[in-house]
Amino acid sequence: MTDDAVPSSPARPQARSPRGFIDRRARDLAAERKILSAVAEVYERHGFEALDTGAFEYADALGKFLPDADRPNEGVFALQDDDDQWMALRYDLTAPLARFAAQNWESLPKPFRRYAFGPVWRNEKPGPGRYREFWQCDADTVGSARPEADAEIIAMAVAGLEAAGLPAGSAVVKINNRKLLNGLMSAAGVASEAQKLTVLRAVDKLDRLGPDGVRLLLGEGRKDESGDFTKGAGLSAAAAERVLAFTAAGAGDRSATLSALANVVGGSAEGDEGLAELAAIDAALSGLGVGPDRAAFDPAVVRGLEYYTGAVFEAELLLQTTDERGQPMRFGSIGGGGRYDDLVARFTGERTPATGFSFGVTRLAAALKAAGRDLAADARGPVVVLVLDQARMADYMAVAGELRAAGIAAEVYLGTSGMRPQMKYADRRLSPVAVIIGGDEFAAGTVTLKDLDLGRELAAGVTDNAAWRAERPGQLTAPRAELVAAVRRIVDAQAGGGAA
Amino acid sequence: MTDDAVPSSPARPQARSPRGFIDRRARDLAAERKILSAVAEVYERHGFEALDTGAFEYADALGKFLPDADRPNEGVFALQDDDDQWMALRYDLTAPLARFAAQNWESLPKPFRRYAFGPVWRNEKPGPGRYREFWQCDADTVGSARPEADAEIIAMAVAGLEAAGLPAGSAVVKINNRKLLNGLMSAAGVASEAQKLTVLRAVDKLDRLGPDGVRLLLGEGRKDESGDFTKGAGLSAAAAERVLAFTAAGAGDRSATLSALANVVGGSAEGDEGLAELAAIDAALSGLGVGPDRAAFDPAVVRGLEYYTGAVFEAELLLQTTDERGQPMRFGSIGGGGRYDDLVARFTGERTPATGFSFGVTRLAAALKAAGRDLAADARGPVVVLVLDQARMADYMAVAGELRAAGIAAEVYLGTSGMRPQMKYADRRLSPVAVIIGGDEFAAGTVTLKDLDLGRELAAGVTDNAAWRAERPGQLTAPRAELVAAVRRIVDAQAGGGAA
Repeated sequence: MTDDAVPSSPARPQARSPRGFIDRRARDLAAERKILSAVAEVYERHGFEALDTGAFEYADALGKFLPDADRPNEGVFALQDDDDQWMALRYDLTAPLARFAAQNWESLPKPFRRYAFGPVWRNEKPGPGRYREFWQCDADTVGSARPEADAEIIAMAVAGLEAAGLPAGSAVVKINNRKLLNGLMSAAGVASEAQKLTVLRAVDKLDRLGPDGVRLLLGEGRKDESGDFTKGAGLSAAAAERVLAFTAAGAGDRSATLSALANVVGGSAEGDEGLAELAAIDAALSGLGVGPDRAAFDPAVVRGLEYYTGAVFEAELLLQTTDERGQPMRFGSIGGGGRYDDLVARFTGERTPATGFSFGVTRLAAALKAAGRDLAADARGPVVVLVLDQARMADYMAVAGELRAAGIAAEVYLGTSGMRPQMKYADRRLSPVAVIIGGDEFAAGTVTLKDLDLGRELAAGVTDNAAWRAERPGQLTAPRAELVAAVRRIVDAQAGGGAA
Repeated sequence: MTDDAVPSSPARPQARSPRGFIDRRARDLAAERKILSAVAEVYERHGFEALDTGAFEYADALGKFLPDADRPNEGVFALQDDDDQWMALRYDLTAPLARFAAQNWESLPKPFRRYAFGPVWRNEKPGPGRYREFWQCDADTVGSARPEADAEIIAMAVAGLEAAGLPAGSAVVKINNRKLLNGLMSAAGVASEAQKLTVLRAVDKLDRLGPDGVRLLLGEGRKDESGDFTKGAGLSAAAAERVLAFTAAGAGDRSATLSALANVVGGSAEGDEGLAELAAIDAALSGLGVGPDRAAFDPAVVRGLEYYTGAVFEAELLLQTTDERGQPMRFGSIGGGGRYDDLVARFTGERTPATGFSFGVTRLAAALKAAGRDLAADARGPVVVLVLDQARMADYMAVAGELRAAGIAAEVYLGTSGMRPQMKYADRRLSPVAVIIGGDEFAAGTVTLKDLDLGRELAAGVTDNAAWRAERPGQLTAPRAELVAAVRRIVDAQAGGGAA
């Protein structure tokens, strides 16, 4: 604000949504709702039941985000209740599930399968495309240590993504196992947690730096183009090759990958355990008809969250998409998950095996849009009944009511403007048809219908003048008694001549 | 905690949801989702578009709940953002709409019709059935001063409640107009706001005290059974009769009520305006085919919220329902709304007419349940495939996959228990059928199917032993290739013999 600016009246607040929070309009919501209903149906068909926990959890139940006196809001939106207990808005759907499972363990069928979707909140710095509130959709099985529980989650994730609209083969779930990584670390002589993290960070850069760059980072270190030096993990050359062989074992089908991995990490107790789990996952996935084109083993998958204890999965979009400027881009991860056997034990003290998959609903909607599968592209406005005679409002209402009763979305124009602004309004609403009933029509017992798509198509050059005149007259007058049938004929013609 | 109690380890948090927040399981969620999808379809058919605003609003945008230094959480859940601005979780869906409309007014089609549903939060003392988070569903028209906009909202509310499952005629929307109340006040010589409030409070007690009790409260005052004296509004006897005549004008159809009201409040400018609006609402409702059995004028309706400026509505459940103890009870209001022309002006300074209707989703679900319309009563668990041979997991997974591909919900038992606990698990999941494949079945290429409903019916005495043996064998063995057809036959028989 400059010195000259007049400050706005303190009594009149500014209309703006808080930083990092957005309003979602009909088109985006329609796409997200279609995703959620398709995925929910798939998940329920797999025996997963819906659960909705409240927005708040006690901060101690959320785990790692324990509030401290200085920064109670670190990472989460937290506030202190009347009774002085700290509550925080959930930052994901897994922590509330762990709390719910621990709270109700005695009465739940075991294993307990549930899915959930809804907003989660992160008190982070907002940025472009980076919000402080976004929707997630999770499915988890609590109480089964079987690798088949992981396989079921993976197969279901694949089925869910396809039901949501991703073409078969356009996404792949890549699977790894933390136990293999641990086996690799002991085989490579990695001793400390710090060294382990440096190794994992190096592996995570494989896509960007290639094997040669990663080899340097696994050894003494690497100098980049700008001359900056990154200290390496300090592995011996043999150990570094072992790690690289591990990450390269992902080529080929699942059993080929298993054999290659056995050569690298077989023999260590944890490595063998991980291999046995992956073999069982492979068999179950095959039983479920999920081939390596939809679910593959990839030893290079490293998921960040500390709490994973076994299998980890990452769903990746393979489709080439384009960014806002039309440049080709790799969309990357659209979801992930894995086995976390220790989360419920935080409450109960008893280890409770659990596994799950989570995806970002808004992110999947964006992926579908980028993949040319805009689920809401067919969103249409209602038929608009124009108001030409104020004394006939009840008649106009009756016309709209008749259309609705026939299942056609309709509304009466309820502003105060004349004919032209009303037509403009109908156009802006993406209305298919305007219903016009003036003095002539009332006298003759007719209705005039205007095909608004036609005007839009002509304006966009999709349809030429000569072609449509033969097929679609643009405007027609029908007996009042044939209103519904006449509107339906126009809407069908717009949809390409299909029957109602 | 007594002195003897061992304090729980500080490292192990207690698993409990915060006070006033609940977990909702599959059955309740299914009922609420059915309501919302039925209502959303009706609202969209009326030309209302979906909108979802974020959970937070800036506290100043929320209006009357401005935080003060001492009690920043009064009534709402509020917290201070990094940049020191106060944010609060929305306490309803109207305040965010007013903010959204003000923020986007230039680019919106006008009038702007939107519906919304989602959780709202109130930082109040929780109690039985009284939560701090609950779901609302709203529809509003912003930018139309026409009474027909009110009528459309009312007709749509009626249609929405019926689509949600309320039998036609089991609910009525009662309509009044603030302008009539104001006209009545001036006709009755009410001068101050305080006196007006005392009159309204007296009218609001009509149901409980009857006309004689209210007459006392309108005059000098009333002594109740316990001897406590409530000071009255101090109206003259004639003025009190006028108020009582006003409240009694609701008997009969809408035009009869209008005539009766004209006798009481006609002549005052505001009264005449209110009467004209109600007459237009009546005509529009009639055009929409909504008779007085579904939408009636009732001058006794007094809605609490300060911000209403014209028509007010209250949806009331007429069905006799029973409480938890089986006692008959009046369910009462299940939603309401009205015209509020000043909310958007808070931001823009320009009066923007608006009208809307809101209902509590959880409350409507409870009403439907009380009315014997439990939408989730048919909730069923998945078919459970038992695991008798650990080496055959992939085969069991394939069986479940085959059922799912045929649209039948199914799961493989993924625990580690034996046959009997597995059957118990399936029963607890409300599973219709257990699929049993052991050594014999694998050898013979068959599957054994157990009708679990039958066991439940026998246990409940619904079906007798002799009757079902002829029709439903309880357990049968079918060729593996006929798995899907055989499961379907049992499920169809359970549903009463209908075709799949």
